[in-house]
Amino acid sequence: SSSSMYPQNKRLRFIDLPYLPTPQRNLMVDLVSKMETSLGSQLLPSSLPLDVQYFENESGSSQGALDIRSGTQDSTVDFILGSWIHSKLPSGALNITTLTAYLNNTTDAPRFLIEFIQSSPTSLILILDLPPRKDLILYPDYLTTFYNDTQLDRFRQQLVKLPEIQPYFSSSLYTRSVFSTTAVSIVIDCGTGGPDRMDEIILDDVSPAAKEMLDIWLDKCVCGGRDMEEQERVDLKKRDVLVNKKTLEIDLVAGLPRLFGPDVANRVIEAIQKYSLA
Amino acid sequence: SSSSMYPQNKRLRFIDLPYLPTPQRNLMVDLVSKMETSLGSQLLPSSLPLDVQYFENESGSSQGALDIRSGTQDSTVDFILGSWIHSKLPSGALNITTLTAYLNNTTDAPRFLIEFIQSSPTSLILILDLPPRKDLILYPDYLTTFYNDTQLDRFRQQLVKLPEIQPYFSSSLYTRSVFSTTAVSIVIDCGTGGPDRMDEIILDDVSPAAKEMLDIWLDKCVCGGRDMEEQERVDLKKRDVLVNKKTLEIDLVAGLPRLFGPDVANRVIEAIQKYSLA
Repeated sequence: SSSSMYPQNKRLRFIDLPYLPTPQRNLMVDLVSKMETSLGSQLLPSSLPLDVQYFENESGSSQGALDIRSGTQDSTVDFILGSWIHSKLPSGALNITTLTAYLNNTTDAPRFLIEFIQSSPTSLILILDLPPRKDLILYPDYLTTFYNDTQLDRFRQQLVKLPEIQPYFSSSLYTRSVFSTTAVSIVIDCGTGGPDRMDEIILDDVSPAAKEMLDIWLDKCVCGGRDMEEQERVDLKKRDVLVNKKTLEIDLVAGLPRLFGPDVANRVIEAIQKYSLA
Repeated sequence: SSSSMYPQNKRLRFIDLPYLPTPQRNLMVDLVSKMETSLGSQLLPSSLPLDVQYFENESGSSQGALDIRSGTQDSTVDFILGSWIHSKLPSGALNITTLTAYLNNTTDAPRFLIEFIQSSPTSLILILDLPPRKDLILYPDYLTTFYNDTQLDRFRQQLVKLPEIQPYFSSSLYTRSVFSTTAVSIVIDCGTGGPDRMDEIILDDVSPAAKEMLDIWLDKCVCGGRDMEEQERVDLKKRDVLVNKKTLEIDLVAGLPRLFGPDVANRVIEAIQKYSLA
């Protein structure tokens, strides 16, 4: 198995992504590398403690890695967060891989998010989105600028044409509310096509969509501050922190202790909170 | 055809719904009747001009009907709007039937909405929802009260289990933003099952869901004012009017003149604006 490439004495990092099938790993590495190249000196080096950069439970059946890089003072980037979790469950291996880019309140432009949730070799949940940071009902111009003018819905439209792909509805209504109305939120189920067909879909269909969406984000969202009144910046900050807090509760506080035990889970959650609730 | 039951000299009204298949008509009539029974004296009689209660284009190929009943001063109901449009298009008959209940700013509780869009006897778009009137990201308690605690997502979950039903994504991103994350937004496509199977689905699956959702709305949303500060009421009013304005633009300003000519279309749109932008 691919894990044999990473002996115990090599400390795993986020970017190693040791348990992902090659096309998924390559996509994630490409996205991170594109961000790093484009943002360049705007990104500070990671300063996470080693025991949060990589962590596991006592038995070693659950492993995880985290990378957080803050933006510099003059950047619109707040921080970039990458993480993976691998857990050997009785039902099979669970892999959750996430890459999210958060902007600070010098701009109200959307975030970038990609997430793989895989609990079987032939079935994968994929979220790919530029989650909005404003109430789209109150700010129709925001919807026009970032979603209509960029034709962002075409990625979702193209992907759901594949017979293996169905829309995915998160069980958390709050999580659903976080995504834009153009979010790629899908289940890829290859059935008898098997892992080979999954690799093909990731390579031929998902990767181009994810890369193009990242290009749009880098081009239209990160590129500079946006005119806002002081009160708008305060409200934006409040909304960002609330989303982060709720998302952390739903995604991690609810599940991480079960996989890693309370001590490891708390350590990881507290490390993320330092960035996401600051 | 069913239209022969309504000779030229009988003026059609909204509640006649002459072009709907019986199960759809019965459902709409039942919903209106349930609203009228429950709201009773809270609803004022309709005061729309006759040429807006029923309207048609010059050739008679497009017909429509509208009914609007305001709530009394002491009611949380702002107004109830029912409408249907029937148009003989080269591609076949188009039928759009809508029933929406709007609340005023003594409460921030959700609206009730049901809409049928049918352009072939075997295919139907259905929207059934309690559209929220707050930013769900900023008000997670609102999401809990009206959507989680009422288990509102179960209607969507049950309906998409049918092989004939697929999620529907409106081509307007703004329209998508208006709906809740639990909205039943589906295409029912019966294919070879034909109109009989459509009738069966409306009768067995859609009708119970719509009636139960209306019961939830009558029980949890209309039932009384909600504590809000004065500024919240002002913001709520502003948001309601903005949604109504944008929705009117998307649903009617864009399409009604094409079906009815500019004069009839303007008359109808202005009549609705008197209520929805007031």
